[in-house]
Amino acid sequence: QSSVTVFGVLDTSVIHAQGSGPNGGSRTQMSSSGNSFSRLGFRGTEDLGGGYGAGFWLEAGLQSDSGGVIPTNVNNQLSGIQASSFGFSRRATVSLFGPFGEVRLGRDYTPTFWNTALFDPFGTGGGIGSNHLYFVGQGGLGAYVGTRASNSVGYFLPANLGGFYGQVMAASGENVDVEGQPNVHDGDYVGARLGFRAAGFDIAGSTGRAQYASGDLTLSNLGVAYTFGPGLAVVGGLKLMAEYHQDKLGQREGRGGLVGLKWPVGPGMVKASYAYYERDALVAGQADLASAKMALGYEYLLSKRTSLYATVARIHNDDGTSDSLGGVPTTPGRPATGTEFGITHVF
Amino acid sequence: QSSVTVFGVLDTSVIHAQGSGPNGGSRTQMSSSGNSFSRLGFRGTEDLGGGYGAGFWLEAGLQSDSGGVIPTNVNNQLSGIQASSFGFSRRATVSLFGPFGEVRLGRDYTPTFWNTALFDPFGTGGGIGSNHLYFVGQGGLGAYVGTRASNSVGYFLPANLGGFYGQVMAASGENVDVEGQPNVHDGDYVGARLGFRAAGFDIAGSTGRAQYASGDLTLSNLGVAYTFGPGLAVVGGLKLMAEYHQDKLGQREGRGGLVGLKWPVGPGMVKASYAYYERDALVAGQADLASAKMALGYEYLLSKRTSLYATVARIHNDDGTSDSLGGVPTTPGRPATGTEFGITHVF
Amino acid sequence: QSSVTVFGVLDTSVIHAQGSGPNGGSRTQMSSSGNSFSRLGFRGTEDLGGGYGAGFWLEAGLQSDSGGVIPTNVNNQLSGIQASSFGFSRRATVSLFGPFGEVRLGRDYTPTFWNTALFDPFGTGGGIGSNHLYFVGQGGLGAYVGTRASNSVGYFLPANLGGFYGQVMAASGENVDVEGQPNVHDGDYVGARLGFRAAGFDIAGSTGRAQYASGDLTLSNLGVAYTFGPGLAVVGGLKLMAEYHQDKLGQREGRGGLVGLKWPVGPGMVKASYAYYERDALVAGQADLASAKMALGYEYLLSKRTSLYATVARIHNDDGTSDSLGGVPTTPGRPATGTEFGITHVF
Repeated sequence: QSSVTVFGVLDTSVIHAQGSGPNGGSRTQMSSSGNSFSRLGFRGTEDLGGGYGAGFWLEAGLQSDSGGVIPTNVNNQLSGIQASSFGFSRRATVSLFGPFGEVRLGRDYTPTFWNTALFDPFGTGGGIGSNHLYFVGQGGLGAYVGTRASNSVGYFLPANLGGFYGQVMAASGENVDVEGQPNVHDGDYVGARLGFRAAGFDIAGSTGRAQYASGDLTLSNLGVAYTFGPGLAVVGGLKLMAEYHQDKLGQREGRGGLVGLKWPVGPGMVKASYAYYERDALVAGQADLASAKMALGYEYLLSKRTSLYATVARIHNDDGTSDSLGGVPTTPGRPATGTEFGITHVF
Repeated sequence: QSSVTVFGVLDTSVIHAQGSGPNGGSRTQMSSSGNSFSRLGFRGTEDLGGGYGAGFWLEAGLQSDSGGVIPTNVNNQLSGIQASSFGFSRRATVSLFGPFGEVRLGRDYTPTFWNTALFDPFGTGGGIGSNHLYFVGQGGLGAYVGTRASNSVGYFLPANLGGFYGQVMAASGENVDVEGQPNVHDGDYVGARLGFRAAGFDIAGSTGRAQYASGDLTLSNLGVAYTFGPGLAVVGGLKLMAEYHQDKLGQREGRGGLVGLKWPVGPGMVKASYAYYERDALVAGQADLASAKMALGYEYLLSKRTSLYATVARIHNDDGTSDSLGGVPTTPGRPATGTEFGITHVF
Repeated sequence: QSSVTVFGVLDTSVIHAQGSGPNGGSRTQMSSSGNSFSRLGFRGTEDLGGGYGAGFWLEAGLQSDSGGVIPTNVNNQLSGIQASSFGFSRRATVSLFGPFGEVRLGRDYTPTFWNTALFDPFGTGGGIGSNHLYFVGQGGLGAYVGTRASNSVGYFLPANLGGFYGQVMAASGENVDVEGQPNVHDGDYVGARLGFRAAGFDIAGSTGRAQYASGDLTLSNLGVAYTFGPGLAVVGGLKLMAEYHQDKLGQREGRGGLVGLKWPVGPGMVKASYAYYERDALVAGQADLASAKMALGYEYLLSKRTSLYATVARIHNDDGTSDSLGGVPTTPGRPATGTEFGITHVF
């Protein structure tokens, strides 16, 4: 019974972010999770024989700059957010796995999130270089199931399918079906992801839908990557990436794309990305609301577990859009800029 | 100082519960703790020599379907519930033990809870098969000290008393005794449990009282069990169990009983129970409010640490009673039914 | 990656505290952290070669009598308190260290706190014997950065400086600098500590300032100690200690001092302290508000990790002051007294 691994990440940075125009603010702050989300977890597996096994995974998000916590959402709806409480918000699953693949129950990532994160050179980090489609899109950070879903059943294909990989997930909002309850399906979710990886090439598509009486959320995306030379090692060859993304919340549509690269240089990696996202105007007939983000960074590897990083980023806002960096407001139609220095320590 | 054991349980199930009549709802949901309460804990002991030792135990409840948390209660009263916060709600104790037995300080189970749980074939689980006396009785789940008490001193008899075992507990609500404070004893608790176990036979009685200005809560119960054949091993022989229970909250009395069995069949166990509970009507002179629950389940052991389980249950409500399953409302006087499939993984 | 140490303290006691006069209350309660604050933590280090390393430290406060939690403060201001939530409130840092010393990022102790705690025979405990300057002073327990600061960068001198030691810290309240924001520097903090230790002698001074639009907080203190005989071992010789302390919150000044001793007797230690603190009256021209505390205790060491302790304390209040023990009110100008018995278990 001593099969428990305690693991985690502490990622702490200093960000200087700046808006512009009359409403623009500025701030220099310590932040958490610039390169990889800070976390503390407990996991383990048990061999059941015959190639079968059971496993568990409990992973809590945390704020490495303050010791604060990241709440979970117990029902994939507004009412399910557990205030400022510590919880296993990142993942809480029990699994059975074997030659058939893996069945996973509990709170886990949605299939569409993986496509967003894995085809971005800045990965799953939360700093100023991170995924524009995820941070400002309708189906990302702000959506109740934009990253994860609670009360989910997931199935993952086994690893030996000649390069194919994939997963499906269904999750429930768990509302009681009783006379006069209009939102019985709020928080229900289904999603799927299918990919193929071979010879340095990687492509995957995913799609998902969450139901809400106030308007369903759908998200579909496609990611593609090619790695030159020695392959997918941590310091491998130049890797090029691209994503296409479309989402719809109620009747409001959004769409965008990202291109990026990861390039081993010296004892680390250059990362660069350009992303564009536009959503329909709130009033039909008006111009779309669009913004674009450029990010450039370098991650210096002190060891396999510890690295230093520096990133610069700039958001260009079209008229009427005021997407910003680091929580610092900018004026509609005016840019936002940011600089970040940080350390990532994995344990 | 490396004497810390990280341990826990993830128990996740899918429940379909159904009420009946005009107010009856239905729901299919993922749930936590059907067979055993999900938890994460840290514990250890230190040898002090001469048969003496010290130990600690920190155990937090959690929701394996969502990563959510189970709050603790710091003063055994309404005001002591720490909202939706993670905490060592299940147990937080430091102990000294030796030939004299064990003295335990902190938050721990009340003596009466153990009698309720250990003489029920469904044990301490929280699923649809679990203890009716505990889930609907006045001294169970809904009572501030129905399961555990904070600020407690407990004493446990040593193990070598020829089959006798027992414990006493006193706990404090910790209100300041100051002029004009009427509820100074709210949350104060005393309880005791005494049992005898030999030759497959097990019997124990317990009683406890918590003080509240709004009305004291008292609970007394008696449990008896007999195991045929090889004894108390995990997969032993047929085990028969029975409980008698009575509680009183203010002037309102309740009483009930449970009979059950645990029967090793194939690579697992059949579990069955029938329980009946009635409480006084709220208005004197009216009929008692009564309900009964039947539950039948099978637990399939994949290993010592992992099992799959299935349970069906039905509650019969008398006129005026609307006890339900899985949080799904039913109409007074009408039944509630449920089905559950789940997995328990101990680490 | 198995470099994680799980560690902590459970310290549980029973306190009887008593106020006096017409408003005086009394209470016997179980308490946490009488001798050392109860906690659970996770820490580890990584060797980066050449005398350099990286490390992390996550430490959560907890209440050993109830399983309850101690919230963190994410921005060093009132708005940053995370309600009743579990969090790594005691420390959440990632470090790089080497011949140059250590750079530490995140939530950590302020430099002035260390002087308060380390030159007090009752150390960092929270029981009735603990530091009067810290518990009633303006720059202690009640101040947002009286113990720790979030969003901090700290630098510590290396260990080999011939007895000199020291640290500096800067922390940020992280308010956005935007037109019309008056409190942009609220929660910003700077502090430093410098000391010298040799031949049984130890002296250190520290100072810090936190900015608030409602009035800055400054705190300066000086500590000195001398240990007779074998030195600084756990059970060494008699150790004498003294502190001088002054604080200022807005225009209101406070000042005080402490003298104490730690004396190895039998299998444990006698501890004694006397402290005096006075702050300006709220209305200029009136008499200062002063109180004094005497505490006497004995800690009996059962092992290196486990001890029992007993403490008595008494606070003398001048007219208009009503400082108290154990949260039990006393009448202005009247004394408060307390007795405590407890156990400390380190893991």
